[in-house]
Amino acid sequence: MSTSPPFNEEAIIELVRQVAGPAPAGVDVGLGDDAAVLQVGGLQIAVTTDLMVEGVHFDLSFCSPADVGHRVMAANLSDLAAMGAKPAWGFWSLALAPKPRREVVEPLARGLVDLGREHGLALVGGDTTAAPQMAVNLCLMGLLEGARPLLRSGARAGDAVCVTGPLGGSAGGLAWLAQGGNPSEPTADRAVQAYLRPRPRVAVGRALALSGRVTAMMDLSDGLASDLARLAKASGLGARVEADLIPLPNQLPTLAERLGADPLRWALSGGEDFELLFTCSPEDVPLLTEAAARAEDGTQVSQVGRMVPESGTFLQSGEGLADIAFTGYDHFPPER
Amino acid sequence: MSTSPPFNEEAIIELVRQVAGPAPAGVDVGLGDDAAVLQVGGLQIAVTTDLMVEGVHFDLSFCSPADVGHRVMAANLSDLAAMGAKPAWGFWSLALAPKPRREVVEPLARGLVDLGREHGLALVGGDTTAAPQMAVNLCLMGLLEGARPLLRSGARAGDAVCVTGPLGGSAGGLAWLAQGGNPSEPTADRAVQAYLRPRPRVAVGRALALSGRVTAMMDLSDGLASDLARLAKASGLGARVEADLIPLPNQLPTLAERLGADPLRWALSGGEDFELLFTCSPEDVPLLTEAAARAEDGTQVSQVGRMVPESGTFLQSGEGLADIAFTGYDHFPPER
Repeated sequence: MSTSPPFNEEAIIELVRQVAGPAPAGVDVGLGDDAAVLQVGGLQIAVTTDLMVEGVHFDLSFCSPADVGHRVMAANLSDLAAMGAKPAWGFWSLALAPKPRREVVEPLARGLVDLGREHGLALVGGDTTAAPQMAVNLCLMGLLEGARPLLRSGARAGDAVCVTGPLGGSAGGLAWLAQGGNPSEPTADRAVQAYLRPRPRVAVGRALALSGRVTAMMDLSDGLASDLARLAKASGLGARVEADLIPLPNQLPTLAERLGADPLRWALSGGEDFELLFTCSPEDVPLLTEAAARAEDGTQVSQVGRMVPESGTFLQSGEGLADIAFTGYDHFPPER
Repeated sequence: MSTSPPFNEEAIIELVRQVAGPAPAGVDVGLGDDAAVLQVGGLQIAVTTDLMVEGVHFDLSFCSPADVGHRVMAANLSDLAAMGAKPAWGFWSLALAPKPRREVVEPLARGLVDLGREHGLALVGGDTTAAPQMAVNLCLMGLLEGARPLLRSGARAGDAVCVTGPLGGSAGGLAWLAQGGNPSEPTADRAVQAYLRPRPRVAVGRALALSGRVTAMMDLSDGLASDLARLAKASGLGARVEADLIPLPNQLPTLAERLGADPLRWALSGGEDFELLFTCSPEDVPLLTEAAARAEDGTQVSQVGRMVPESGTFLQSGEGLADIAFTGYDHFPPER
């Protein structure tokens, strides 16, 4: 039997999309965005699902069960935020290693439930099973309620490319923890929190969606490089980003130096910041910056580049122009 | 640090339910039934989720990727069937071992998509991730459309306990395959199909729900012993089942004899038959038997016992009365 070579995450998603076929009536947004949007009884609901597996998405030697619960909920809420949806209901699947202890299950459940509740989401059903290692899946539903779903495909050439929050903190925190660093060390503590306890931008996403001025939006889960490349591809455009404009947390350059790492690389390719990436007319940037800060105190919005007609996602830095498309996290990297 | 002992599946579910707290407004059925029921825009939608993990729920040495896809979809559709819901939309999470091949991913996706489509369900979103072994989660949504949600808690003392289909085939097929048996061996082939390609009773569940004569319903996923104990407990009652009334597939006693196993035990404790368990007034059994056969040609309905006021789930056989409550599949069995 001849076998085809391994294929990467994008190719797998594309294959599943082909097998699933076109979306039926009642599906306003199907495969390929942060969440699907369904029409139910005249309402639009956004639905997203995300699975995290021990040893792949988290390491229980430095993530507590409560951190795991929080992170899975954050990743899923972030997808609803990216659609401008108001979180409503959630369904979990917990895979637990054999002989689970109450001391593990209870904080895991609390991590999920507490962050959900903070954003108005109730967990109303689920499944529990044994597995060789811990894995947590969530499927969340949110209501659009007045917001038009914000797709990846709506960007226009000339649009500003904006991000919320500083980027790269989560990857820096992970790098620190993975090397056995003390989580409360002052150089690292905020990065560690960004990794262990990310804040999904639910209120900000909703405010941006309700503004009517955002042309495309998605959340930053795999790093700016890959996620912007996805947005550009979905919009049939390219993007140019300036290295100097990418917002880094204040402590990150020092932390990176201690680890011999590049903080810009963390921001571009690290992933799991769960901030928002969006596009708009350049003249709307101040208005949207204000709307974001009003929705969630202290939210920082930075214009990091612009959309261009030519395809490709490039970074402009002192070293010239570099192709950064799809250099972020890939679950199934091609063999090198 | 003192640690509490391991706790079993029921205790884990109860703990998560406590942490999640009471269901908010808009949730007609919350935790603890086959599916949750939500009110969205004046419609009732049933939502269920179910995760299957390689090495726990399936063995790729005798389940093809297409079988895996079919089985996960069947398990989830069966939960919708048990609520009388009409399948509509589904969301998958695929965890794939590193370097997945197209020859694995495509049939897996087809197994999911094809069975879903057969029952009117479209897969409209999902997530893909790497993991040490394959795992597939589905979250399915269905519409009640005229059916009152059929809960586990509605049984009344004196009600007939009925099941669709013969039981135990799936467990027999699994036992045969696990021993390296030839799947097309005439003594085993139908049991093997019952295991690899279970038929969720979607049309039958809907017909039973629309009849208005069923008092409680659930699907048989962990075996009659455990599932009936759950229904009885939820209804605040007990149940008595007669061994002679439990319908077994014709070939099953012969297969069991070859394997030195007890076919009745397969039916009681094997699980994954994905047939329906329901209760109704004894005088409604003929009418519901007819409704089931009309909904899906050849569907067999058997009354296997009755609900009683005294708690406990007991089996009456030639050997007397035996307590069978919760002797079915438990993902987290207590240590013995």
